[in-house]
Amino acid sequence: MSEGICSHLKLKALGIDTFKEHTIFLPKHCSICIAQGFDVPSRVLVRLSDKEILATLNIIDDDLLKNGEASLSVRAWKLLGAKENQIISISHPPPLPSLSHVRSKVYGHHLSSEAIKSVIADIAAERYTDIYTATFLAACAGGRLTDGEIIDLTKSMVDVGDKLIWDNEVVVDKHCIGGLPGNRVTPIVVPIIASFGMLIPKTSSRAITSPAGTADVMEVLAPVDLTIEQMKKVVNKEGGCIVWGGAVNMSPADDIMIRIERAMDFDSEGQLIASVLSKKIAAGSTHIVIDIPVGETAKVRSRASAKILENLFYKVAHELGLTLTVIKSDGVQPVGRGIGPSLEALDVISVLQNADDAPLDLKQRAIMVAGAILEFSKDINKGEGELYAKHILESGEAWNKFQAICNAQGGMRQPLKAKHIHVLCASRKGVVKKIDNRYLSRLAKLAGAPHDKAAGVLLNVKLGEMVDKGQQILEIHAESKGILKYAVSFLKQYSEIITVE
Amino acid sequence: MSEGICSHLKLKALGIDTFKEHTIFLPKHCSICIAQGFDVPSRVLVRLSDKEILATLNIIDDDLLKNGEASLSVRAWKLLGAKENQIISISHPPPLPSLSHVRSKVYGHHLSSEAIKSVIADIAAERYTDIYTATFLAACAGGRLTDGEIIDLTKSMVDVGDKLIWDNEVVVDKHCIGGLPGNRVTPIVVPIIASFGMLIPKTSSRAITSPAGTADVMEVLAPVDLTIEQMKKVVNKEGGCIVWGGAVNMSPADDIMIRIERAMDFDSEGQLIASVLSKKIAAGSTHIVIDIPVGETAKVRSRASAKILENLFYKVAHELGLTLTVIKSDGVQPVGRGIGPSLEALDVISVLQNADDAPLDLKQRAIMVAGAILEFSKDINKGEGELYAKHILESGEAWNKFQAICNAQGGMRQPLKAKHIHVLCASRKGVVKKIDNRYLSRLAKLAGAPHDKAAGVLLNVKLGEMVDKGQQILEIHAESKGILKYAVSFLKQYSEIITVE
Repeated sequence: MSEGICSHLKLKALGIDTFKEHTIFLPKHCSICIAQGFDVPSRVLVRLSDKEILATLNIIDDDLLKNGEASLSVRAWKLLGAKENQIISISHPPPLPSLSHVRSKVYGHHLSSEAIKSVIADIAAERYTDIYTATFLAACAGGRLTDGEIIDLTKSMVDVGDKLIWDNEVVVDKHCIGGLPGNRVTPIVVPIIASFGMLIPKTSSRAITSPAGTADVMEVLAPVDLTIEQMKKVVNKEGGCIVWGGAVNMSPADDIMIRIERAMDFDSEGQLIASVLSKKIAAGSTHIVIDIPVGETAKVRSRASAKILENLFYKVAHELGLTLTVIKSDGVQPVGRGIGPSLEALDVISVLQNADDAPLDLKQRAIMVAGAILEFSKDINKGEGELYAKHILESGEAWNKFQAICNAQGGMRQPLKAKHIHVLCASRKGVVKKIDNRYLSRLAKLAGAPHDKAAGVLLNVKLGEMVDKGQQILEIHAESKGILKYAVSFLKQYSEIITVE
Repeated sequence: MSEGICSHLKLKALGIDTFKEHTIFLPKHCSICIAQGFDVPSRVLVRLSDKEILATLNIIDDDLLKNGEASLSVRAWKLLGAKENQIISISHPPPLPSLSHVRSKVYGHHLSSEAIKSVIADIAAERYTDIYTATFLAACAGGRLTDGEIIDLTKSMVDVGDKLIWDNEVVVDKHCIGGLPGNRVTPIVVPIIASFGMLIPKTSSRAITSPAGTADVMEVLAPVDLTIEQMKKVVNKEGGCIVWGGAVNMSPADDIMIRIERAMDFDSEGQLIASVLSKKIAAGSTHIVIDIPVGETAKVRSRASAKILENLFYKVAHELGLTLTVIKSDGVQPVGRGIGPSLEALDVISVLQNADDAPLDLKQRAIMVAGAILEFSKDINKGEGELYAKHILESGEAWNKFQAICNAQGGMRQPLKAKHIHVLCASRKGVVKKIDNRYLSRLAKLAGAPHDKAAGVLLNVKLGEMVDKGQQILEIHAESKGILKYAVSFLKQYSEIITVE
């Protein structure tokens, strides 16, 4: 631009993964910072040939970067398609007009469709810092979105992502609000539904804070990171699939907002509804079953709040042209026996194979959800869905279909078993009075789940069950002796995980 | 803890300055992440001997850190008093109970004194991520704080910082809401008040997004980074001081919240009032003048919103036992001629020295504010304050006192002049119709302010002034030729900075 000042910098890879907003690293004595009048913390527009991103400026010691050099956080590097020694240019970013809508919502004003659209477009394009996104979410929470705004939010979230289109008139899906540990009904429900002949193109998530997501469990049994094209092929061939939603790009804004909401542990109804329904609409679904587990340690804690959520779901879904069935289920204790990818996969397989020791609660939940979905079919009368679901499952049809789906997704795999196991025995005779879901999840994670597929916790008892002194009530599975010991030491500190009285 | 797994890591300095929440950097294949079940992004408790902090986990390439090594962001490193190769331990952080209050506020509930206290204590102790703080601020904005909550917020913010105690019954202070470029009345007001014999222990801020803060301007003329002890000495000797508030630790929570608010460009009334009054109470003030400039490009844009703010200020101040005078002033155009540390300091000096060419608007504003403060004295009748202030200023007493204060703060300095100057001349004859405060500030920053003390912009005209074609209307001052050229190229793009018609 003029002597001594240049807005061009040479890229150097440092591989710093910030997991969040894009970050540009500049050396302490970067002349460009002074020249451009960049304050810190500052937002910077970074351009590499025809691509650009907004990044937050961090400063780094001159040892790692010299004047004239710059580095980018891992995700920013990838999005720009950057290579070592390429030249980027940096400049002041253009103002983000959508922030005025965020402020407007903070002040409690109603947002127009256009306003919501522009906010969601900027979030999806990763132009917001965490501060902006958190502010928007906080301003929308606490019942501050009208039904109209929730509908606009849902539509906007669909608009910014890819959308699947199917030929079938009825395309079904399911969603469980705030999962329970081990509640892995999806890999059972999908083959039941697909066997019946309904289309169920299911995308699932990986664990974010839990010991396993449905995608993690399914990955034990088959590849899940399919492209949209591959996913379509599977669904067209088998009528259903169970793939990782993160590999497809169906609701990019939602992925970002969910990260912030998890950090804050929010329960924003409007956001939740928009999040769930936008992903279903993007997947091309027309008929959806929503399962709301209600219980003290579940996400929805009372019948009353479940009812409010249910009504809102019906209202918004109706406006969006979706057919919905909401079922409320028991959210008091973990489902099945395993907690962790492989252990949950084993539960799933035993239910599909109708094994004698298959966990009955997991089977019953799968039948309940599948039954509700089947009743979307004009060939099934109300109240008869579960009968059909049970028949398809118990006849072995679902197991055959599941294997076919796995093969179509790239080949079926055998779950691994952990090398190291610690068994906890009851210290007294009595009744299982309480199981702490939160500590159980934590224990499974400490044992290595979901990173170590075979790691996790195996529960041998259910609430209300009578146990003898010395009876095995819980197993910790780990892939190394060291990690197992570590998890055991946690268990010893928190013996209230399972209360026998 | 057990073989193969150890929660101890060796520190390696990388000097990464994140400017915000503390960050711990761990190598990609850090076994401790797996062992402890850390998810990313995750919060981690970092301990070094008896000190601990909460940090956000970032992952870095194995080239920079080996397994068993860790690094910390600059501020975290400093707070822990860390040294290269020292051993830190990391673990899961304890839950932050105050986050439930943040969520409660998001849902629109009233917060108790205790709840507000715990939130502010955690913010001040730097235990919140930006997401948490942004969520709290968004939940409090838009008139969602009751007067009682604003009072509790103010008290809590005072409680977490250091407090000054003075022997005098009346201790005065002033504050201007949302500064105008060049509005540097403080270095004129303080010596007037101190000359009269009232106690005015003034702390000021440095620029955050502006080309100069009062502390930056004062620093041109004397040292401002005094400790609390040094500050007390100056005030006890001279009756007043003008020091940098950031060097003392009077409202640590506020410093953090202001950073988030600036990023969002919030105007949260409750937060603003708590922010201003908490700092004044911490400084030991009993009587305060609040100046609210009102104008289109000022922070407060209308008489109506100024009135709301004024009423709220009076109410909260009354509850906190403070005596307050609110004055509303003209916020339409920059004050004085200079924008930038040295240029503003020169304006201040010329007013204090009663120079013929001293900017009249700056002088009048200083007299207005000083007059309002003087009327807190029982020796001065209402309406006579400005007369006294004018007399003290014009008699040279204020100038003498100012020099005494500078010397007490460490010695008076001469403002530097810039080496390179570009002059903008009017392209036509006409009247100055519009001056864009925002672009002026940007231009001054591009010229190097506040980093380069002598850099900035000198305005030679005022709104409504008649100018001839070719008349000098604006000067850009810079410390290097290159930077000057850069600023000039900006000026050429944005010729609407000054509109002559």
